Amino acid sequence: MHTMGSSDGDDSTNVSTTAGKIFKIIRDHGPLYANDIVKRTGLAKSTVSEYLERLLSVGLLRDEIPEGSKRRRLKVAESAGYVVGVALGQTRLNVALCDLEAEIIDSVGGPVDLVRETPDRILARAVDFARELEERAGLGPSALFGLGFSLPSPVDYAQGFPVNPPVMPGWDHFPVASYLAQEFTCPVFVDNDVNVMALAERDKGAASTPAYRKASFMLVKAGSGIGAGIVIDGEIYRGAKGAAGDIGHIGIDGDETLCRCGNRGCLEAVAGGRALAAAAEAAAASGRSPFLAEVLGRGNAVDMETLARGAASGDETCIQLICLAGSQIGNVMAKLVNFFNPPLIVISGSLVKLGERFLASIRESIYHRSTPLATADLVVKKSALLERGATMGAAILVLDEVFSHRNVGKLMRRSPG
Amino acid sequence: MHTMGSSDGDDSTNVSTTAGKIFKIIRDHGPLYANDIVKRTGLAKSTVSEYLERLLSVGLLRDEIPEGSKRRRLKVAESAGYVVGVALGQTRLNVALCDLEAEIIDSVGGPVDLVRETPDRILARAVDFARELEERAGLGPSALFGLGFSLPSPVDYAQGFPVNPPVMPGWDHFPVASYLAQEFTCPVFVDNDVNVMALAERDKGAASTPAYRKASFMLVKAGSGIGAGIVIDGEIYRGAKGAAGDIGHIGIDGDETLCRCGNRGCLEAVAGGRALAAAAEAAAASGRSPFLAEVLGRGNAVDMETLARGAASGDETCIQLICLAGSQIGNVMAKLVNFFNPPLIVISGSLVKLGERFLASIRESIYHRSTPLATADLVVKKSALLERGATMGAAILVLDEVFSHRNVGKLMRRSPG
Repeated sequence: MHTMGSSDGDDSTNVSTTAGKIFKIIRDHGPLYANDIVKRTGLAKSTVSEYLERLLSVGLLRDEIPEGSKRRRLKVAESAGYVVGVALGQTRLNVALCDLEAEIIDSVGGPVDLVRETPDRILARAVDFARELEERAGLGPSALFGLGFSLPSPVDYAQGFPVNPPVMPGWDHFPVASYLAQEFTCPVFVDNDVNVMALAERDKGAASTPAYRKASFMLVKAGSGIGAGIVIDGEIYRGAKGAAGDIGHIGIDGDETLCRCGNRGCLEAVAGGRALAAAAEAAAASGRSPFLAEVLGRGNAVDMETLARGAASGDETCIQLICLAGSQIGNVMAKLVNFFNPPLIVISGSLVKLGERFLASIRESIYHRSTPLATADLVVKKSALLERGATMGAAILVLDEVFSHRNVGKLMRRSPG
Repeated sequence: MHTMGSSDGDDSTNVSTTAGKIFKIIRDHGPLYANDIVKRTGLAKSTVSEYLERLLSVGLLRDEIPEGSKRRRLKVAESAGYVVGVALGQTRLNVALCDLEAEIIDSVGGPVDLVRETPDRILARAVDFARELEERAGLGPSALFGLGFSLPSPVDYAQGFPVNPPVMPGWDHFPVASYLAQEFTCPVFVDNDVNVMALAERDKGAASTPAYRKASFMLVKAGSGIGAGIVIDGEIYRGAKGAAGDIGHIGIDGDETLCRCGNRGCLEAVAGGRALAAAAEAAAASGRSPFLAEVLGRGNAVDMETLARGAASGDETCIQLICLAGSQIGNVMAKLVNFFNPPLIVISGSLVKLGERFLASIRESIYHRSTPLATADLVVKKSALLERGATMGAAILVLDEVFSHRNVGKLMRRSPG
């Protein structure tokens, strides 16, 4: 689906690869002086100079002279092109226009009903949103370098469609990438929401500090559904069938709660946002929580912010519900920490709105139940990006692909000289 | 610890790297014709010829002319050198002398008591065993390319010592690699047993077929302890603190069995070899199993073969114990399959002796409790190597390091011309 033009019989692999390498180093570490690039690549100074000129001339790089310096530094020409990141959630569709540094320039979004609306209808709305953003930014037809689409389901990444989505009728094997490729001339990439959220944390969020460069970590999204994006040595790990990280359907031993997937005792059926809201409503109805009874009495729904406010006001039921969800999620993550031994776990999703008490309960369960060695230096922290993570991550997915070693050479031939 | 000589300021990186690349391709895919190597490397024919001559002249490669062909094929000169693989277990020390294809030439071993004997004493015995093998093979002092040491504990791989071993008094941070480096002039590498067992399955066992080349898989050792070796894209994944794969201490929710690690409900405390033997003895004492009562009555210990024989003879208790252990292990693995989505799980360790019923129970639990997508193509199979896996794997660990791109060039300078 996501090929970069048709020049498969590339006769200038070395040129492409070298340009790609240099571009990637500048993308990852820039702005950089030419000397720094020589050091990092081990290439001859003359070779680096030659490629820098070419990348500058096609507009992929730009230079700047820092104050007090005489030498120029190179950086990605962030406005040389744009990418669109689309994030489809259970109840909302968000679309962002990003520059080549994955910074969000403009965004738009609206509600969706993933269970009731057809894929065609939702995708058409995504296309409309993207067109709206293009128009507002006054972009020409070749300004888009690519479009990334994230959705809450396992995805066959190579084919660009969802596979076995648990509660998205009509989406199984629906050709999302092909559909969008008909609408746009740029390459289209489709992936799972937690994978792209992990990419966003890697480049722009909680895992973007030098300490975690090229590290392995987990991004856990705790929302209506629960899932994990797994990054190994800086790259997304998808597993044999693209199903890696599907931790929401890990079973809690002995729990018999029926899950939407048909199994019993799945983590998300017990501690996901939907389960939590249902438990809160039950607590209100039974009179156990005066705070929640009052909220419901006023005709308001109970969401994560409500629970957080209840806990802050000292409502014991709210505190208990928050701590229980945290400890149930932490208990499953303790098992995964023993297996995967990551240095970092980033928590995102709507349950983060439950507040510090929720995060503390997750940490407590992990530290209590994992081996001391596996948790010796483990950091569990909140996403720095939250809602922006998914659209930004979908944009980064595109940038990673479009600016891969191999593809930068092609872009150099495509861009105006 | 495991440096290859002292030439760190290597002035011939490209030579080394090219030689290393060619050697690795021959090691992984050989025997090969020169043409195949040209195709696989993309190097010029003249370059490949030049390096092949050099690798032949230093004795790292040899050629052979297949019947009916006129052209020579290149392969690793398996007798150009040797490596020693040492596997230390809870109750046994095994040492193998292997050729450069990791085939075992000769081996020797004996009982140990990891809890009562000091590290010095056990390592001295390992040295004696290795010397005995060198002598029997008539090897000179420079014939050994390296020594690999595997032990049943988390290992700090860079430093070459065990870290936080659960039940090995005196071994925590004991400098195993330094100790052995004083005895041998060759490089020494120390790793966890399940990691090297996974390497052995990758190169010589259940994961060595083309279908799993460069694949990700798990090797699960189910013995007195339970642990997993994780291979990602053909390489060992160790985790942030070398603790990855420590699945024996994953907690079973609600189980309160005390584990040797101090925690409660750990998988190996519930379903490991020791727990199984204890349960069998209790069943014998209570009269529930006439078969086991008779075995114990004759003064014999109950081991895994005994349980397998009991099950084969129709003893219900034996059958129940085997199925319960399999389903408990499978239940934990189901969670890990949701997270890691491997195409292959290889089962090794003494519990494999429980027979097909045990493996079937593991499979049943995984298929029952993982998502359908994650298990769509999952294969769960018995190790092809079993006991040999650990010594062979320790040898492969050495070969991987010694024949890395970087090091082959150094070997070319060291070897006689």
